[in-house]
Amino acid sequence: MIEAIGVIGGGQLGRMLALVAKRMGYRVVVLDPQPHSPCGQVADEQIVAAYGDLAAIEELGRRTQIVTYEFENIAIDSVGHLEQHGYRVTPAGSVLRVTQDRAAEKAFLRACGVPTTEFATVERPEELDAALAIAGLPVVIKTVRGGYDGKGQWRAASRAEAENVLRDAGGAAVIVERAVDCACELSVVAARASDDEAVTFPVAENVHEDGILMTTVAPARIDDEIALRAQELARNVGQRLGIVGTYCVEFFLTRAGELLGNEIAPRPHNSGHFTIDVTPCSQYEQHVRAICGLPLSPPRMFSRAIMTNVLGDGRGDRLGGVAELLSDPAIVLHVYGKRHAVARRKMGHFTTIVDGPIDDAALLRAQAARAKLFWS
Amino acid sequence: MIEAIGVIGGGQLGRMLALVAKRMGYRVVVLDPQPHSPCGQVADEQIVAAYGDLAAIEELGRRTQIVTYEFENIAIDSVGHLEQHGYRVTPAGSVLRVTQDRAAEKAFLRACGVPTTEFATVERPEELDAALAIAGLPVVIKTVRGGYDGKGQWRAASRAEAENVLRDAGGAAVIVERAVDCACELSVVAARASDDEAVTFPVAENVHEDGILMTTVAPARIDDEIALRAQELARNVGQRLGIVGTYCVEFFLTRAGELLGNEIAPRPHNSGHFTIDVTPCSQYEQHVRAICGLPLSPPRMFSRAIMTNVLGDGRGDRLGGVAELLSDPAIVLHVYGKRHAVARRKMGHFTTIVDGPIDDAALLRAQAARAKLFWS
Repeated sequence: MIEAIGVIGGGQLGRMLALVAKRMGYRVVVLDPQPHSPCGQVADEQIVAAYGDLAAIEELGRRTQIVTYEFENIAIDSVGHLEQHGYRVTPAGSVLRVTQDRAAEKAFLRACGVPTTEFATVERPEELDAALAIAGLPVVIKTVRGGYDGKGQWRAASRAEAENVLRDAGGAAVIVERAVDCACELSVVAARASDDEAVTFPVAENVHEDGILMTTVAPARIDDEIALRAQELARNVGQRLGIVGTYCVEFFLTRAGELLGNEIAPRPHNSGHFTIDVTPCSQYEQHVRAICGLPLSPPRMFSRAIMTNVLGDGRGDRLGGVAELLSDPAIVLHVYGKRHAVARRKMGHFTTIVDGPIDDAALLRAQAARAKLFWS
Repeated sequence: MIEAIGVIGGGQLGRMLALVAKRMGYRVVVLDPQPHSPCGQVADEQIVAAYGDLAAIEELGRRTQIVTYEFENIAIDSVGHLEQHGYRVTPAGSVLRVTQDRAAEKAFLRACGVPTTEFATVERPEELDAALAIAGLPVVIKTVRGGYDGKGQWRAASRAEAENVLRDAGGAAVIVERAVDCACELSVVAARASDDEAVTFPVAENVHEDGILMTTVAPARIDDEIALRAQELARNVGQRLGIVGTYCVEFFLTRAGELLGNEIAPRPHNSGHFTIDVTPCSQYEQHVRAICGLPLSPPRMFSRAIMTNVLGDGRGDRLGGVAELLSDPAIVLHVYGKRHAVARRKMGHFTTIVDGPIDDAALLRAQAARAKLFWS
């Protein structure tokens, strides 16, 4: 019987997970190097230690009955260490080995029957020409490991630009991908239980700015056929991964109407935040249910929604305009408790509940709401 | 600017309040004599001290920008002490002076234009006959102060029984009320802001067993006219009280179709738990908004709901049957983190989302769900 859940990583995903787990009556212990992390502020206990501190990781295993993580860039060794020492940890290290390496991830997507853009890896500069021969131009170049929120990601329209990128990447292995003629970016948040039971949330449509997710529209404004296909592909990916928990598969929808798999996140995802406010069982609760051996809940949406991220801008740590924002009864606000609103840091988000269709008026309303908030 | 909220009382109401306040980005400090109280488990800090420990109460005021409470039976002196020393506390002590005294409360309801059953107070045994002359028989006899969940409450069908009750009450002042020929019990959860803005949730219908709320049906299955009247009366009560925050007014609906005011709770209420799961802005968020000077949110319901309390039965502290309960996707579970499931203790609740009408089938479904849970 699970009474306490361990979480590696104390950011906002861990925080939202902990808030749900507490509501369901679980104890939560988080491990994060930063004291009073966003998750630590709502958990029962925080172990302050580096993700790679194996003694501390083991302590997390000892204090809980199941360990999970909110940040896929954690040292794979930590998860492996828990597994080797007989602690329950999910998703399994085998999942991380796929998702931590962009090349392995893309190859895996293809093996699952998910088309991807053409790509090749470049570990040494002399491999660039061969890679460009596969990928063509323009390309998107990403570090194979460790990038997120647009970090470790560049565009190159020419061979010369690609060479400069390789120099900027400082010798890190990169993946060179053919740039996609993208109609929109989609994501499917899904959850899988240990008995192969699986659920998928409605497909979400994502708008990024400078590589950071800014807005999610749910459900995506796409043909039913494409939506069903994306959900089916996401289910296939989950099954092949053998993942237990909530995960997300990101897709590009090309202008030609083709779905191309982009990334797998083996955890609750920013594009699934809307599920907290407009579904009875959010992506976080599905994750808790999956890892605790409880049945998943077939998703239903009470209403359509637009999720808007609230980023820091470096002008100050105090969020203003909240009263103005909340004067719109369609808005639900989430603030992550981060002390410093560094530029581009994800500080919170809000969900706009949309009763009619998600048209330009609805999007402008969400945008106008975002403009009410400021940092000082 | 409010960054931290102080809560006097660490029970489940404080816990659910804290979970919302954390989601909105506030720090929460709770004061409760019991370490690791339900609220303390999700708050940033708990001050372990008696409610009447004025030095500790003042410390709570110092560590926060606004103090509120989740338990109206706290020493009125604590709230008064904070007010006298310039700390912000809401609802105000003047509200507690009305609601802590059942006789003052009933007189206040009448002054607000809310009819009540006939009643009289009995402070000395020789006042019983005069009281029965007003109230008639049968009567319900309640201690003037301190009762809750059916404690301090008795029925008497004869003068002799009433005398026995007075003896059982051990000399405490009591209120003698004419027993109401009740069609159903209703409650209106409402919230009021400092600028007189007010919102009321749909009227809820409550079923008690042995004086403890067991089930709430929302919205109540009553005529619109009665519902509107109950909401109007609740708004009047809030305005006259000058309360800032969420409160609840309980009514009896007599078989003759008359609304009689019964009690005022100056805090979020058990009968408003459904608002967490089927409205975008729950009674707890309305409370946070009211005390923090944020605009209230006009309530809307995503669906109908039945709330079912989960009580301890003294057979054990471990809740079983959760997987079976959650196999119904209409159910949302809340567990309060109390260590010991003493008989009749409120240990949690669940909300059943009801899509169709709330008919016998829906009620039986909720009842069957409750039967899946057990303690061991």
